Amino acid sequence: MIPRYNLWIEENEEVVLSLWRVNLLTTIDETGSISAAAEKMKVPYRRAWEKIREMEQRLGFRLLDTEVGGSGGGGANLTQKAREYVDRFKKFEKGLDVEVQSRFEEAFGSIVRE
Amino acid sequence: MIPRYNLWIEENEEVVLSLWRVNLLTTIDETGSISAAAEKMKVPYRRAWEKIREMEQRLGFRLLDTEVGGSGGGGANLTQKAREYVDRFKKFEKGLDVEVQSRFEEAFGSIVRE
Repeated sequence: MIPRYNLWIEENEEVVLSLWRVNLLTTIDETGSISAAAEKMKVPYRRAWEKIREMEQRLGFRLLDTEVGGSGGGGANLTQKAREYVDRFKKFEKGLDVEVQSRFEEAFGSIVRE
Repeated sequence: MIPRYNLWIEENEEVVLSLWRVNLLTTIDETGSISAAAEKMKVPYRRAWEKIREMEQRLGFRLLDTEVGGSGGGGANLTQKAREYVDRFKKFEKGLDVEVQSRFEEAFGSIVRE
């Protein structure tokens, strides 16, 4: 048996940030484009793009500075505010995996070790 | 903004217990039947019943002692082992809401207070 968790933030009962969404933003930051990030995360480009747009609408600010076309075929960089929210979310989650694992072992340890 | 989380346990990459599933078991225990629990949790009876059967298959033991029919129209009690797993899961989760809220305030506090 393995413990799992998800963590997210809602505004008006709608998800604005989650582990998956922050991973998407981080991957866009690393790869420099939505399409490369979508490929890496094994989701259709359209889905990645829609999630970004949805987050921007719900948060009320831009997450990406995008260049359309150009010699590099267009690219995307996180805005300063997106970067700030990504950092805050990572702080929010940091060490929670250890916390959850420790709770799990305390509660189910004798069964897991059987 | 409001922090949210889910917590679950997997075996062979399949969910065996989760906050919702443990709530279902607890509600069956309180109401004494799957149908009353399903109504209380606002899900179709069939869905509640299927989730129980699925958990039993994945865990490899019975969760409910069920009576079919009879003067009370049938009822369901948690088995001793189900009760043990419910208690362990509650211990696993206990206080995590406070932990998550505290992490959230630390990471996003200045924004939330804006």
